[in-house]
Amino acid sequence: MNDVVLTGDRPTGPLHLGHYFGSLANRVMLQDKFPMYVLIADYQVITDRDVPGEIRRHTTGLLLDYLAVGIDPAKATIFQHSAIPELNQLMLPFLSLVSVSELRRNPTVKDEIAHSSQSAVSGLMFTYPVHQAADILFCKGTLVPVGKDQLPHVEVTRLVARRFNERYGEVFPLPEAMMGEQPLLKGLDGGKMSKSRGNAIALSATEDETAALIRKAVTDSERLITFDEERRPGVSNLLTLAGLCLGRSPRELADEIGDGGAATLKRVTTEAVNEFLRPIRRRRAEYTEADVRQILAEGNARARERAVLTLDEAQTAMGF
Amino acid sequence: MNDVVLTGDRPTGPLHLGHYFGSLANRVMLQDKFPMYVLIADYQVITDRDVPGEIRRHTTGLLLDYLAVGIDPAKATIFQHSAIPELNQLMLPFLSLVSVSELRRNPTVKDEIAHSSQSAVSGLMFTYPVHQAADILFCKGTLVPVGKDQLPHVEVTRLVARRFNERYGEVFPLPEAMMGEQPLLKGLDGGKMSKSRGNAIALSATEDETAALIRKAVTDSERLITFDEERRPGVSNLLTLAGLCLGRSPRELADEIGDGGAATLKRVTTEAVNEFLRPIRRRRAEYTEADVRQILAEGNARARERAVLTLDEAQTAMGF
Repeated sequence: MNDVVLTGDRPTGPLHLGHYFGSLANRVMLQDKFPMYVLIADYQVITDRDVPGEIRRHTTGLLLDYLAVGIDPAKATIFQHSAIPELNQLMLPFLSLVSVSELRRNPTVKDEIAHSSQSAVSGLMFTYPVHQAADILFCKGTLVPVGKDQLPHVEVTRLVARRFNERYGEVFPLPEAMMGEQPLLKGLDGGKMSKSRGNAIALSATEDETAALIRKAVTDSERLITFDEERRPGVSNLLTLAGLCLGRSPRELADEIGDGGAATLKRVTTEAVNEFLRPIRRRRAEYTEADVRQILAEGNARARERAVLTLDEAQTAMGF
Repeated sequence: MNDVVLTGDRPTGPLHLGHYFGSLANRVMLQDKFPMYVLIADYQVITDRDVPGEIRRHTTGLLLDYLAVGIDPAKATIFQHSAIPELNQLMLPFLSLVSVSELRRNPTVKDEIAHSSQSAVSGLMFTYPVHQAADILFCKGTLVPVGKDQLPHVEVTRLVARRFNERYGEVFPLPEAMMGEQPLLKGLDGGKMSKSRGNAIALSATEDETAALIRKAVTDSERLITFDEERRPGVSNLLTLAGLCLGRSPRELADEIGDGGAATLKRVTTEAVNEFLRPIRRRRAEYTEADVRQILAEGNARARERAVLTLDEAQTAMGF
């Protein structure tokens, strides 16, 4: 069986440079090697919040972010969860293959619960790993780029696939987690990078917005710029950011800036980021709203075709 | 909003006279008063058993039972759960509206768990009331004929509908349980009537099979036939059965049989049942296998059309 990549995001707001270096860059590379499905997990937005918010706007924004960074809809199938009813119909047999105690033990669900804004654990949160199994297996995904915190979910997916195959015959592959989707960058205030904290540079930020954000970045008062993540996290984080954008090592950049101080560091970083974002901004500007709607409709149609085939195969195996 | 009836069965084997007098007769009456959806809950067969068994055969058998007793596919929409992916896509938002502790408290789930052949409680069993909410609400069912043991499920459906409406705007009606689907008849051995115990007269039984089953029915050695459910459960159960088939009171029948003993009672009952089943057998024989497939395909198409509309309305309300 040939490899298929499944990846995606919840449409909760603009993607930023942390997403780019943590996962998007990898996806742009993967799309040339494997068939790839990119899930806009709109339904999962209600897993950890009460209402989905401006989901329509965030969905088209997310798709634009994908297109801007170079995910190519001719190569990758970008689709919305909510547009694929057949995907969800895999959930019932999958739920029958997992016990309540197995769901209760899932560490990511435990963690999601701890960080959730909901007062009580919902049935949706509780069964979340099984939804994710359906997301991965509907397209027979075999490679799932994940961060460390999502490893247990992929384990549930493997369990579900293995048990389904044992009970009904070989239908699903056992997907592998591809480690690597992880934050390389901290926020500009030293905290976790997050759009809602205003400490992240969105891929859609203008030159001026980018300059303003970096101007406010936390650094220190030592004149000589050095790369020392332990002792000088703010300075080192800017060096990492500039280095990633320029494809150079942060230590080398520190040496070049020397005793130019934080002001020079910020100027170098701003130029590096804006240079890096230039082609991304240009590609974003090429797409009209009608293009985006069209691309989404085509991706949804392709993903749905795949889901219909898989559901049919699964139901036939089950004797329906 | 006009009333809509939702009812149905799991396709696990032939329906019997207990089903007829407990629920089917009522449905035949209801189909003239309300739009009615009759769910063949094929997916739910895997809720309490490991494998679905001969589900295809049981599904067409169930549909034939429906047609034979007079459920009219021109009036009622008979459909299979597995053919309606859009129904299952309601499950995700619905799961988000119910907490794990609410699911854990559901008495029917507790009971199902106690009687289940599965070694551990599956995620499917645990979330079963939420699936049922989707089954009821996809067609905006307002009247749900149920037995007493299913009342808590309808309560979960009302809870889900109320919370959805509060959060996203008025989309779903709050369905009412119609009490009345309950066993009036015991099995011919005095136990719970059940096909698997061989103590039930299937609606598809031949005249000879019917006679043989009643011949083996447990009675007693008192010559004088009287209706006394406490002291003479076997005799009284046959009187009830004959009475239901003839539309007469069991006491009246007992008086007529007098001291004819169990042999007369069984002869009278056999004649009553066979007379009663005659038009049902005749209607069953009128349908070819191709008819059944066609009727199911039409029902599925109609139910799916309804589900697409409801899903669309729900997703629009949620902002998708």
